[in-house]
Amino acid sequence: MSPEIELPTLEDVNEAARRLAGVANRTPVLTSRTLDQLVEATVFTKAEGFQRIGAFKFRGAYNAVAALPEDARSSGIVSYSSGNHAQAIALAASLYDVPAVIVMPEDAPAPKIEATRGYGAEVVFYDRYRQARDAIAKTLAEKRGMVLIPPFDHWDVIVGQGTAALELFDEVGSLDTLLVPVGGGGLISGCSIVAKAQLVAPRVIGVEPEAGDDVRQSLELGRIVSIETPKTIADGQQTTAAGAKTFAVMSQHVDDIVVVSDQEIVQAMRFAFERMKVVLEPSGASALAALMAGRIDAKGQRVGVILSGANIDSVRLAQLLEGD
Amino acid sequence: MSPEIELPTLEDVNEAARRLAGVANRTPVLTSRTLDQLVEATVFTKAEGFQRIGAFKFRGAYNAVAALPEDARSSGIVSYSSGNHAQAIALAASLYDVPAVIVMPEDAPAPKIEATRGYGAEVVFYDRYRQARDAIAKTLAEKRGMVLIPPFDHWDVIVGQGTAALELFDEVGSLDTLLVPVGGGGLISGCSIVAKAQLVAPRVIGVEPEAGDDVRQSLELGRIVSIETPKTIADGQQTTAAGAKTFAVMSQHVDDIVVVSDQEIVQAMRFAFERMKVVLEPSGASALAALMAGRIDAKGQRVGVILSGANIDSVRLAQLLEGD
Repeated sequence: MSPEIELPTLEDVNEAARRLAGVANRTPVLTSRTLDQLVEATVFTKAEGFQRIGAFKFRGAYNAVAALPEDARSSGIVSYSSGNHAQAIALAASLYDVPAVIVMPEDAPAPKIEATRGYGAEVVFYDRYRQARDAIAKTLAEKRGMVLIPPFDHWDVIVGQGTAALELFDEVGSLDTLLVPVGGGGLISGCSIVAKAQLVAPRVIGVEPEAGDDVRQSLELGRIVSIETPKTIADGQQTTAAGAKTFAVMSQHVDDIVVVSDQEIVQAMRFAFERMKVVLEPSGASALAALMAGRIDAKGQRVGVILSGANIDSVRLAQLLEGD
Repeated sequence: MSPEIELPTLEDVNEAARRLAGVANRTPVLTSRTLDQLVEATVFTKAEGFQRIGAFKFRGAYNAVAALPEDARSSGIVSYSSGNHAQAIALAASLYDVPAVIVMPEDAPAPKIEATRGYGAEVVFYDRYRQARDAIAKTLAEKRGMVLIPPFDHWDVIVGQGTAALELFDEVGSLDTLLVPVGGGGLISGCSIVAKAQLVAPRVIGVEPEAGDDVRQSLELGRIVSIETPKTIADGQQTTAAGAKTFAVMSQHVDDIVVVSDQEIVQAMRFAFERMKVVLEPSGASALAALMAGRIDAKGQRVGVILSGANIDSVRLAQLLEGD
């Protein structure tokens, strides 16, 4: 627990929602009778793959850029990410017509580099085996006089991500359980702030890949645990430690963390594709995987599931779905 | 023109919508700023892949089954289809707990046969090179005392499909142009009835694969033209002739038919997958393909596009998207 930190509230998420109105997509809530029968629950999936850049990350990135004073914003944004946050910051900066610099590993996949550049961002490479990306980004931001917006441990990023849950509750009403994928904890932090402010607050359960359960360990031990970069297909959840801010929120608002295997993730991706016609990247499927694999008890409940992203190419998707 | 046929009206579609309420999904309308910029229009896509069985076909099939007097329905339903209508009838019959028999070609893909059987239907095979499936189905229905519900040339099927357009107009208001894929004409017939009943009626434009433009020819000549089974990847549009009913509606309400190449369809499928995260089967992408390939003039307009279905496996999807 970190009692010294004052946590954001529902009102902060509402403010983020006002900033995002007309800029972010309101993503659809999709249901499946087959899924409901399979898990014996009433399930509402929030399909964040339909968010701009194909994942929830745009919510937090845009909110953080929008929340900056104009003079700070105009000098530009620095961030680091090999994935969806990079594209999200690049797009958010381009919408404000300010420069963005993204620190990416030298061996990042070419399509992700191209996508980030496609939104007009400059890409600066680092050697992921010899350099710490956050330190590089911090130095770069200072040198260029730009603002650093990290991928998850930032209040405006956190409350921005929470708008996904805001839309979900607005659309479906009360829930018994909310399942959210956990990487660095930005998404679940924002969503849990919203969930726990509901009149009837649901359980909030985070889902990590079993190879990288640092947040589960951290919440059990009451301090932030760091792990080696986990080996999992869920590349959006290969974080090695929560941040101080996300840890504080999760300590307060998250009821439990469960883990899923890569195989369970693939099974959820296959179900989503074949039966729901929804494309999910591995991280985007982990919360659904936890529900389908029976990792939580949800029988008879109203369950919200955040499907957090859809950035996967068709060849990789086919390989995963056919290979299992 | 077939002035002797009395066409269904908006009220018939409204009645179908009442039958489908709570049974069919209300599918999401998805937008893409990238698409809007690309085609210089404001585009609303109706994502029918999220309908039950993965395509719009459930609307018409269920409406037709639901509209039957109970004693007729209880003896069971016969239909013929190698694709989505088979599954739609099978599911609709199972929801009413009545038997369904689907006539399918001997060489139909195993997954489609399995899917149809999975909904509890009996599958009867025929030799597609030696037998006419509609005649077989008709004989079978008579012999067994069951009701034949054909895939498109049936008023309850047609007005059922029209509920897709009903939801679209309800959600987005007026449109300048509505683009609809055309196979046998059931979907566009139902949708055009709704479109032309709007206060400000849009143009209704049908889209056929260029290898199989029988409806374009038919509307030009004012009589139903039959063609050989067209060679196209759009297997849902491999029909050889419109029906008397769909021809009558299209003659009255459809403003134009345009064609698209298989390559244009693949490009639309790729855009939908990569940028919108929407899975489309080839037929489901043809209306989007017509817009993206500039086959119609839509600049500055509000354009509705029916994305009619998403039944494609991941390997085939990857082959098509990577092969072009």
